[in-house]
Amino acid sequence: MNPNRNRQFLLVNRPTGEPDEADFMLVEQPIPVAGSGEVLVRILYLSIDPYFRFYMSEVTPLIAPHPLQEVFGGDGVGQVIVSNHDRHKVGDIVKGNFGWKEYAVAAGDRLERVSPEAPASAALGLLGTTGLTAYFGLMDIGKPVPGETVVISSAAGAVGTAVGQIAKLQGCRVVGIAGSERKARYLLDEIGFDAIVNYNDADWRAALHKACPDGIDVYFDNVGGGVSDTVVTLLNRHARIAVCGQTSHYNGSPAVSGTSIPFALWKTSALMKGFMLYDYESRFDEALSQMIKWFREGKLLNHEHVVEGFEQAPRALIGLFRGDNIGKMIVKVADL
Amino acid sequence: MNPNRNRQFLLVNRPTGEPDEADFMLVEQPIPVAGSGEVLVRILYLSIDPYFRFYMSEVTPLIAPHPLQEVFGGDGVGQVIVSNHDRHKVGDIVKGNFGWKEYAVAAGDRLERVSPEAPASAALGLLGTTGLTAYFGLMDIGKPVPGETVVISSAAGAVGTAVGQIAKLQGCRVVGIAGSERKARYLLDEIGFDAIVNYNDADWRAALHKACPDGIDVYFDNVGGGVSDTVVTLLNRHARIAVCGQTSHYNGSPAVSGTSIPFALWKTSALMKGFMLYDYESRFDEALSQMIKWFREGKLLNHEHVVEGFEQAPRALIGLFRGDNIGKMIVKVADL
Repeated sequence: MNPNRNRQFLLVNRPTGEPDEADFMLVEQPIPVAGSGEVLVRILYLSIDPYFRFYMSEVTPLIAPHPLQEVFGGDGVGQVIVSNHDRHKVGDIVKGNFGWKEYAVAAGDRLERVSPEAPASAALGLLGTTGLTAYFGLMDIGKPVPGETVVISSAAGAVGTAVGQIAKLQGCRVVGIAGSERKARYLLDEIGFDAIVNYNDADWRAALHKACPDGIDVYFDNVGGGVSDTVVTLLNRHARIAVCGQTSHYNGSPAVSGTSIPFALWKTSALMKGFMLYDYESRFDEALSQMIKWFREGKLLNHEHVVEGFEQAPRALIGLFRGDNIGKMIVKVADL
Repeated sequence: MNPNRNRQFLLVNRPTGEPDEADFMLVEQPIPVAGSGEVLVRILYLSIDPYFRFYMSEVTPLIAPHPLQEVFGGDGVGQVIVSNHDRHKVGDIVKGNFGWKEYAVAAGDRLERVSPEAPASAALGLLGTTGLTAYFGLMDIGKPVPGETVVISSAAGAVGTAVGQIAKLQGCRVVGIAGSERKARYLLDEIGFDAIVNYNDADWRAALHKACPDGIDVYFDNVGGGVSDTVVTLLNRHARIAVCGQTSHYNGSPAVSGTSIPFALWKTSALMKGFMLYDYESRFDEALSQMIKWFREGKLLNHEHVVEGFEQAPRALIGLFRGDNIGKMIVKVADL
């Protein structure tokens, strides 16, 4: 490695709509030195997540805005190359909130060891926060019963592809809402969704109705907006809606729909609940054991969209909001 | 009694907006004769309920439209004057779905005996479906904890006045939303609400914010629409919303608001659940025992708005949608 070259992306501008490449600036810094209790990590993969969009704004619903002129980003997985911490050895694979960098120093106590039983990137997707989000939203709020119909918006996304697989394991009819024929084919052929409705088709509402002949029992919502207005017209009595994300509003567009939801809930005695993964922190181990078990048995697959090259991180984020990915959006920074 | 005079109201027209007196026609029929297993009831009180508005339309969300040219109405309380049924004696007070009539014959098996321990009309309000609706929505969905803030829309209505009282018994701060100064005064002075916000005031949003300095933990929603859009901006994490009614839509107006709700639920991990009283049918006895106990102890009062005279039934219904009532809207047909 070149000790003087540690590329990083700073946030330099707050977008008003979709993020843009000009919102980020690539800089080079020296590779930092690990102090006492710290480790130096060579980053292998970066997690690209919808919530990044909030960070970029001045006003955010849940988290503090990301400061301008500082290194942007979120979780990553990397390999320990220097360790001043008992629990981490050189060569270990670890996960941490490193930001968009090629090398990072972090307190050893704040790093999580990644199981060697799965590809390293899975710790950012199916076997990480993405998979756990799918698990708790579906199992704890959706409470699917065999034979019920589960509808998933943004079905081709990181969380959606995980929810679809878990719902199939529960014996449900699984119907996805996605935005392209390419995604529809993938979800049907590679993941085993029972039906996919393309919301860009003019007659998608009729198609959803047809895909759910017995109504909808569980709705796992990643998107919100007008899609939800249509879904709720098909709710069965005592249906459950898990509100995982509202990506239709993340780029700052006002909420223009959702108007029919309270009335629909009232009409069907349905439940709608928002959640954050950290609501379930005390049950992470339980869920992760189950997910790893299913993964080992070949019942769950880690679907990911890997963008190659550290310098592609901004483009990967832009692509996430344009719907480029099927499964988890990942930037591959370096080979193991 | 005059055996030839049993006044009744027929539904003769389906309104497009608010109901109108011309939607009903007053007719006279002979007083019917009780057959085997039946009783003849002289009606004392009629229950006037928001759900009547659905009945009147061609297209209804939950119940079949009420046929034209047939006797309109819902529950009433009356006195048995002829009985061909073992369980009912002449002089007993009974509750049943009689419709808007002065005398009705009903199958004895379908009548409920009314406890003599409370005024007869209470069986249509606090100690009937109204009070049970308040009880289950608040206790089962709202799950109030002492010290929490409970907000109630349509606070001066039949359900709202009951919810407010039960929430006070749970040790909560209780904030009502109502539409006039007269109602505000009554709710503060007679029921003990901690604060009332008048949604007709230009600055009611600021007033609600001020009335809920610690945010909102439970929202008991009878109204929906734009009021809810404001309430949800003040939700605390893990707040609960019971959707009891959506009266802002009952007169056929489209749902013009509610847009911010899914986003707010997501942001706060809040729960929103619709319900119908009959979801809780297996627990009616439990709830009614508790309500009667509180009533006997003087901890709950039956607030009602009594309109005198059978011929006033249509005007009472129109008044319900104009917000004339504080507490349960009742038509008094006859003295005991």
